[in-house]
Amino acid sequence: MDINKEIAYKASDADRMIYRVLPAEKGYQKTVFQAMNYSVLAGGKRIRPILMLETYKLFGGSNKAIESFVAAIELIHTYSLVHDDLPAMDDDELRRGKLTTHAKFGEAMGVLAGDGLLNYAFEIALDTLDETKGADNRAVIRSLKVLAKKAGIYGMIGGQVVDVEAEKQYGISKNRLDFIYELKTGALIEAAMMIGAILGGATDEEVEQIEEVAKKIGLAFQIQDDVLDVIGETETIGKSVGSDEKNQKATYVVFEGLEKAKQEVADLTDDAIAILQELPYENPFLTELLRWMVLRDK
Amino acid sequence: MDINKEIAYKASDADRMIYRVLPAEKGYQKTVFQAMNYSVLAGGKRIRPILMLETYKLFGGSNKAIESFVAAIELIHTYSLVHDDLPAMDDDELRRGKLTTHAKFGEAMGVLAGDGLLNYAFEIALDTLDETKGADNRAVIRSLKVLAKKAGIYGMIGGQVVDVEAEKQYGISKNRLDFIYELKTGALIEAAMMIGAILGGATDEEVEQIEEVAKKIGLAFQIQDDVLDVIGETETIGKSVGSDEKNQKATYVVFEGLEKAKQEVADLTDDAIAILQELPYENPFLTELLRWMVLRDK
Repeated sequence: MDINKEIAYKASDADRMIYRVLPAEKGYQKTVFQAMNYSVLAGGKRIRPILMLETYKLFGGSNKAIESFVAAIELIHTYSLVHDDLPAMDDDELRRGKLTTHAKFGEAMGVLAGDGLLNYAFEIALDTLDETKGADNRAVIRSLKVLAKKAGIYGMIGGQVVDVEAEKQYGISKNRLDFIYELKTGALIEAAMMIGAILGGATDEEVEQIEEVAKKIGLAFQIQDDVLDVIGETETIGKSVGSDEKNQKATYVVFEGLEKAKQEVADLTDDAIAILQELPYENPFLTELLRWMVLRDK
Repeated sequence: MDINKEIAYKASDADRMIYRVLPAEKGYQKTVFQAMNYSVLAGGKRIRPILMLETYKLFGGSNKAIESFVAAIELIHTYSLVHDDLPAMDDDELRRGKLTTHAKFGEAMGVLAGDGLLNYAFEIALDTLDETKGADNRAVIRSLKVLAKKAGIYGMIGGQVVDVEAEKQYGISKNRLDFIYELKTGALIEAAMMIGAILGGATDEEVEQIEEVAKKIGLAFQIQDDVLDVIGETETIGKSVGSDEKNQKATYVVFEGLEKAKQEVADLTDDAIAILQELPYENPFLTELLRWMVLRDK
């Protein structure tokens, strides 16, 4: 099967788990339910849910909590986009060709729908904890902690803060750029794969290896974004080509030049896949997915 | 001891638990740490933490997770104020005589500090779950679920949504007003007292009774706010007297008249205290605190 078709197929699997938890659009507060559902249903490739599910499959998982965590990670990703699009942040009216949440529902609802998605993600993930059980909760507890840490101020939000500040500065250090890349996008990719591993039954050491895989892929994914900004086609990545350069934004291409940046994407991807293949399990689709994520060029 | 002094004393107890978890202001993302800490340290009476601690004491609690939940509920209360003050929401530049978070740190940081506080609240509360333990986690699991539910779209955020929409409408129903009052302020007061009870060792039935106490006190607290808006002194409640009426805002006083509203505050408070006193435990300060909360008139 063609990889794009296969990803679309896997995404529909994830969608089933996501749709299951979406709030019914009724009650006095139904506007926020509509805004939340609109944001989640606006599309996206469901990369994080698919990464979680495929890592879970790699370890032969059978913990039914996985479905709620698949939904939770996409809700958190979605809230981060909703808040990122706000006038106070990136001020985007369109995303994937559709009105952004605040553009459609008003700015107050953009703030509240984002808050609602974040809080609700924890609510549904917490629901998988069984008060009456003891040891069975262990993997869920670890997953919850990973989710909260990687999404928070030492994870995604931390990266977002530094990115917002970097936009107002002329010239930032390579270290600061690495920090942004590792946290803003990387942290949630790490959370996705680590939770897949934990709920899949991985050992602590295996979870660490998966974290390393995700860290490298997350970074490669971001550098590739810089590369595509220079060489890509507008319709493919959905923003004006060269927009980073026009904004004098610090990128890997600015720091290293185009060729070295491309090489780094390839090296990071190879390293990540090598670590993955050291594990005594196999999921060929996951390997293919990782390559596809970073080496997309059209 | 004078009740105000006693509350200040209890607040300093709660502050110790709150300060302990505040992030160190260092690292690339230190601006968000500064903004979070600024928001939390901007003051407030720590009513929710004190309610949690005193309910916990009522049941003779000895679960050390209480300290993290005391901090978590104040972080969630603080985030709700930070987002509420944003230009997209109430657009307030001052709170308790100090610059609001976005007024001091910029609007983007107002959004992100709020997100950070919410996420971090779950992070520190989750840290009290012990992966290696089984049954000992039971009370913490229940507390986490209560916290998430009461803070979320079926709790505080839900109330906030309806309140925001009500401000744009001329005339809302009494039912809708009740919904706002029960959720916007009530839900977090319920969470505070319920978690205090749960971690204190209350039975399921007792937790339900405490929820009922909190529900009545929360509603009385809100109606008293309406009453004070009509009869209060500007310097006491920190906004212009009669401002609700000027804004044609629906309030209990508008629906019921001043005398009936005052009577309802008294009745709800008496009912709440009667339920509390049916329990086979005693905490005279908690009773005094509940009366003080709602019957404040200066």
